[in-house]
Amino acid sequence: MNHITRPTLLINKIKVEANIQRMMAKAKRSNVVFRPHYKTHQSIEIGRLFRKQGVDKITVSSVEMAQVFADEGWNDITIAFPVNLREIEAINHLASRITLNLLVESIYSLEFLENHLKYQTGIFIKIDVGYHRTGLEPNHPEIEKMIDFLVSSAKLKFQGFLTHAGHTYHARGKEAVLNIMESSKKQLFSLKEKYLSKFPNLIISYGDTPSCSIAEDCSDFDEIRPGNFVYYDVMQYHIGSCLLSNIAVVAACPVVSTHPEREELVIYGGAVHLSKETIEADNGFKLYGYVVPLTESGWGESVPGAYVSSLSQEHGIIKMPKNQLQHFKPGDLLGILPIHSCLTANLLNNQVIL
Amino acid sequence: MNHITRPTLLINKIKVEANIQRMMAKAKRSNVVFRPHYKTHQSIEIGRLFRKQGVDKITVSSVEMAQVFADEGWNDITIAFPVNLREIEAINHLASRITLNLLVESIYSLEFLENHLKYQTGIFIKIDVGYHRTGLEPNHPEIEKMIDFLVSSAKLKFQGFLTHAGHTYHARGKEAVLNIMESSKKQLFSLKEKYLSKFPNLIISYGDTPSCSIAEDCSDFDEIRPGNFVYYDVMQYHIGSCLLSNIAVVAACPVVSTHPEREELVIYGGAVHLSKETIEADNGFKLYGYVVPLTESGWGESVPGAYVSSLSQEHGIIKMPKNQLQHFKPGDLLGILPIHSCLTANLLNNQVIL
Repeated sequence: MNHITRPTLLINKIKVEANIQRMMAKAKRSNVVFRPHYKTHQSIEIGRLFRKQGVDKITVSSVEMAQVFADEGWNDITIAFPVNLREIEAINHLASRITLNLLVESIYSLEFLENHLKYQTGIFIKIDVGYHRTGLEPNHPEIEKMIDFLVSSAKLKFQGFLTHAGHTYHARGKEAVLNIMESSKKQLFSLKEKYLSKFPNLIISYGDTPSCSIAEDCSDFDEIRPGNFVYYDVMQYHIGSCLLSNIAVVAACPVVSTHPEREELVIYGGAVHLSKETIEADNGFKLYGYVVPLTESGWGESVPGAYVSSLSQEHGIIKMPKNQLQHFKPGDLLGILPIHSCLTANLLNNQVIL
Repeated sequence: MNHITRPTLLINKIKVEANIQRMMAKAKRSNVVFRPHYKTHQSIEIGRLFRKQGVDKITVSSVEMAQVFADEGWNDITIAFPVNLREIEAINHLASRITLNLLVESIYSLEFLENHLKYQTGIFIKIDVGYHRTGLEPNHPEIEKMIDFLVSSAKLKFQGFLTHAGHTYHARGKEAVLNIMESSKKQLFSLKEKYLSKFPNLIISYGDTPSCSIAEDCSDFDEIRPGNFVYYDVMQYHIGSCLLSNIAVVAACPVVSTHPEREELVIYGGAVHLSKETIEADNGFKLYGYVVPLTESGWGESVPGAYVSSLSQEHGIIKMPKNQLQHFKPGDLLGILPIHSCLTANLLNNQVIL
């Protein structure tokens, strides 16, 4: 810890490995393909921990990320983002060297791919099961047209239907999450049944960490793609996906000022380190992170009554009761459990695996 | 524009130069030192545009940024952030080669600096004039102790009192901003008067883009440190600091999907590109950016009724009336006027100066 001078992401390897192992075991038990999403960690080292446990298919959210992991020897990658046609050159380069799956949600993009792809590429149709971010609703007429198009394409290899039930992030508690999962299953399953005769190998692929963490079993699907579970975070804790003790990352931040008169600490650690992701606590106020003391080998339990109350570019303001605050002075380090580990890990280039 | 494949920051050089020139002229007219804050652009190229207009003193918000600009030949830098004692080694290295000013708000940090700094360094006491983020309130007893300490230090060269009236960001309209400026002036001025006999060269240094943009004159202060004005953004427009036409940056983002049935477009451009900074529009809904069409040489006026309504890691969702939406298809580019250009410019490494 003595070498840490700037905001730094501490990664607890034991927790990461346990998080991977738990999800891997569930996927095996459920007899589904485990294709974890790497957008959360975006880390070559963490990728190696997955590989050690037998993972060989992965999900990413950009062509850029696919390039990074392809360079690292990952050769079966789904880019779970509506295909960006402007990157066709980079996509062709990827398709020339790995098994690549793309997401499409319009006949327009399918036609473009048919005309511009040089190599056979897997295609998933993105389905909107209720999140309403991307994808086509299961009864959308575009699906039928796309299927007809795919039937006759030699280049575009239809893989199946894929969804990300991101509305689980707004759910709180097991039942709410499992209801979304059940509804998603029904919608994807009806599509599978409808088109299975045309594409006997089509699969249904399901995402999101809350569902895959909370469900005992994922066997209704053919493939799962959770990502956040590798680190978890305060948001996942609030949803009910994990315990606070499962959270595998902390942002270590230097204390730069203490203001006992207003029960506040100032840390070097702002929006450019933690992101402005926030959750509303029960009584309506917003918070940007929990506060934990750092120990020689990691971090302890969250400091009672302490939370990150606001962020500007480089500053973080921590509310902390006086009796706790007196233990900190400028130059000390403290830890922030992030609200959304995907965004925090993306921002913090300084990373240390403990 | 044809070469843009991923989210990219477009910087309109003519607007940047006009924004610099306007602020520079005001500083000259007011007879104050102009020490612009570089945290917004963090760009060597934009720094050169300032230098061309005669700027030679700058402000940054981290030791890391100070290093970058010191390497570029900037030799008079204030790090406007409570000094991070854990970076004392890097600070010493900086102090050995440039004129460096640090911000301090406790006797504890002063003592640490006295014991660990190897070179004479400028010291500002950070004053809280009402923003309540950092700094000491003008009547805080710590100030008197710090002054006594500084009087007898040969190494720590007291420069004066510095504030950032960040509460102007919550103000709307000229009068509200000017009231904060007037109150800040009174508070800083009373400190200046009190200690001028001990430090005849002490100055009062004032920050924030809303104040410095809206005030006709800044002559109540000795130095001004606005930063955001170089680019401006939607937030500044809402405060009343600028016109929409003064905003000098746009995030160019590929369209990846259109959903006319729900009057939405999906862009490749999410929280990791734009930041999750948001403002609440008049009728209570949140927005993450305005939408502009891109032209061959820049961008046009904002698309009526269109706005970024939500962001996830890589996705941006744009609400857009059908009659506008019909002009866009996957593979097109559109522009997002950022809510907070400091955060967007920090995130978008792909930058093109037009």
